[in-house]
Amino acid sequence: MEISKFVAPEIIFGRGSLSQIGESVVRLGVSKVFLVSDQDVISSGWVDRAVEYLDAVGLDSVIFSSLTTNPKDCEVSEGTARYLESGCDGIVSVGGGSPTDVAKAIAILSSNGGQLRDYEGINRITMPLPPMVIVPSTAGAGSEVSQFTIIVDTERKLKMSIISRSLIPDIAIVDPELLRTKDAKLAAATGVDALTHGIESYVSLAATPLTDIHALKALQLISLNLRKAVADRADMEANASMAMASLTAGLAFSNAILGAAHAMTHQVDGLLDQHHGETNASILPHVMRFNLTACPERFRDIAIAMGEDVTGLDLLPAAERSIEAVQRLIADIGLAKGLAQLGLEEKYIPILSRNATKDACLVTNPRSATCADIEQIFHAAL
Amino acid sequence: MEISKFVAPEIIFGRGSLSQIGESVVRLGVSKVFLVSDQDVISSGWVDRAVEYLDAVGLDSVIFSSLTTNPKDCEVSEGTARYLESGCDGIVSVGGGSPTDVAKAIAILSSNGGQLRDYEGINRITMPLPPMVIVPSTAGAGSEVSQFTIIVDTERKLKMSIISRSLIPDIAIVDPELLRTKDAKLAAATGVDALTHGIESYVSLAATPLTDIHALKALQLISLNLRKAVADRADMEANASMAMASLTAGLAFSNAILGAAHAMTHQVDGLLDQHHGETNASILPHVMRFNLTACPERFRDIAIAMGEDVTGLDLLPAAERSIEAVQRLIADIGLAKGLAQLGLEEKYIPILSRNATKDACLVTNPRSATCADIEQIFHAAL
Repeated sequence: MEISKFVAPEIIFGRGSLSQIGESVVRLGVSKVFLVSDQDVISSGWVDRAVEYLDAVGLDSVIFSSLTTNPKDCEVSEGTARYLESGCDGIVSVGGGSPTDVAKAIAILSSNGGQLRDYEGINRITMPLPPMVIVPSTAGAGSEVSQFTIIVDTERKLKMSIISRSLIPDIAIVDPELLRTKDAKLAAATGVDALTHGIESYVSLAATPLTDIHALKALQLISLNLRKAVADRADMEANASMAMASLTAGLAFSNAILGAAHAMTHQVDGLLDQHHGETNASILPHVMRFNLTACPERFRDIAIAMGEDVTGLDLLPAAERSIEAVQRLIADIGLAKGLAQLGLEEKYIPILSRNATKDACLVTNPRSATCADIEQIFHAAL
Repeated sequence: MEISKFVAPEIIFGRGSLSQIGESVVRLGVSKVFLVSDQDVISSGWVDRAVEYLDAVGLDSVIFSSLTTNPKDCEVSEGTARYLESGCDGIVSVGGGSPTDVAKAIAILSSNGGQLRDYEGINRITMPLPPMVIVPSTAGAGSEVSQFTIIVDTERKLKMSIISRSLIPDIAIVDPELLRTKDAKLAAATGVDALTHGIESYVSLAATPLTDIHALKALQLISLNLRKAVADRADMEANASMAMASLTAGLAFSNAILGAAHAMTHQVDGLLDQHHGETNASILPHVMRFNLTACPERFRDIAIAMGEDVTGLDLLPAAERSIEAVQRLIADIGLAKGLAQLGLEEKYIPILSRNATKDACLVTNPRSATCADIEQIFHAAL
């Protein structure tokens, strides 16, 4: 047995829990809040609501929302300048994976200086970060509990994985009410992101009993609720279950890291600027097929967690049921597309594959993958 | 859905992880360590080992071990005086539930002043505690991850439950190697403590999806490994599984609180000074029977997690299988005794029952219990 570590933020979960934001920020000793969000979340009224709760405990807020899907290094630089001149001493994010990752990246640069690429990889942040409270508005990224931030390096046209214990927020406030104002397409894409987190962390070389229970719980919840959440955005039971799935998948991958699917999507996202969940949907089944023989018992567990009946099946056919379950789910929520349909041209596959071999997420993939292997998977997913 | 909170310390798990103690304490900014342990753990050589690791990072330690099973307020007072005069600025415990709870209680008094009973109940600690790193040497108490400390009030002859977020240690280092030097009787008693934590937190009124997955994992691990761990103390796979079970049960009860069994054992422990796990073994099945009709689905889940085949059974008979599984396990590890055998005289039942109704753990019991109900359960368990 190796020595493993498991770290989680304080988690506040439940409908209406956004109301805890004021008390939470005060408890961390913050006197002025830098609130990162995006235009869509602002339009939905959630930022106004958060600002009211912060007002109620006597805290001023400065709002920053100049960011895009697949957030970029230049947006982080602008946000950092704004943070430093604002007089704020704590960072809150109300939004999906993009605002959350920007909030974390601003926290890095404002306290550690330099450029984001200085911190690419694992545990390269040395100075303490300002207090952070994260309120996710989508169910998928899991960044509210993770030690990851993923930012596009616009020069190299790829996503940098920055992984460090200090990126775990102090408090995650997960209020499923916020999901209600997101549309079905986003619910589908973010749900596949959570699905990919659950699967990749469960088969990760760094998986532990503690990450396993969180990963399997996520897969069970996603199988039972993602279709419902996509079909009816007002189904609050499905929304709450997906919020919990995103959270448990986040705890799993934050501590077990990910695998080849994320190493590959990070490159595609940097190039195409599609939603990360859609890219995952195209790539995940093909990575599962590549990994299947490395740990068929684990894939059989995944099939069972996803509700497949594997009674009487031999190990490999039982393991393959996990791929079928994933493909059926992706098709049912309308995301069964090839990478070409998302805009990927074949000529980019060699460079994307080379960059994927350098991504920190590839290290924990259960089957070692050469650049040629990754090219093959890209071709299969095209 | 109510708003729930989930808090956990950083967890370092695995054989040999005691070696991480120096780096962990340094990371928390501690310059001199107050190390709480007991004579048995010292004799086994683990404290010497810990002191060597602390030496290696340049840290002096002061050792405090004047404490007993079911640790007492007077021992905490002595420890607090020693801590305050020692010039230490951080607290480490290497030992079972008793040293851990004493370490936490010293942390309270040294930073918050007053007497321990000022902090009895939930969230009554206001000032920050010194940094704490906990290394458990038994698999059961779960105090390494919990927001509880349980100390005997020698005047009132009962155990006080002190429950507060700030009692969660900064870092829990769970090294199954330490279990090897504990005898079979202690392994059995502490194992039943973990079993009781798993069951009471799973049926608790404050249970959440996050506490549920930890509780069920604990029950599964205990059913598969406690008999082996008791039969062969050198079975390191069983020891590691029990260490993980104690940890997951600890995460479950720390966040979901407990129930009537603990509300009752706290009183018996205060009076008789028997091992808390033995008292639990006498009382738990009778509390389960009392609670069964309040949440039979939950008890059926427990039966399944404990490996019972409930196929084709109606709900109540399936739920009852959980009690049978617990009774069989307790008998197999030699703890099937009545409270009278542990030394309890019938005349104490009225006062113990009255005190149990005031214990914080009773609030989350799934079936509301009057003083008369508790007297009946005590009689059944006699």
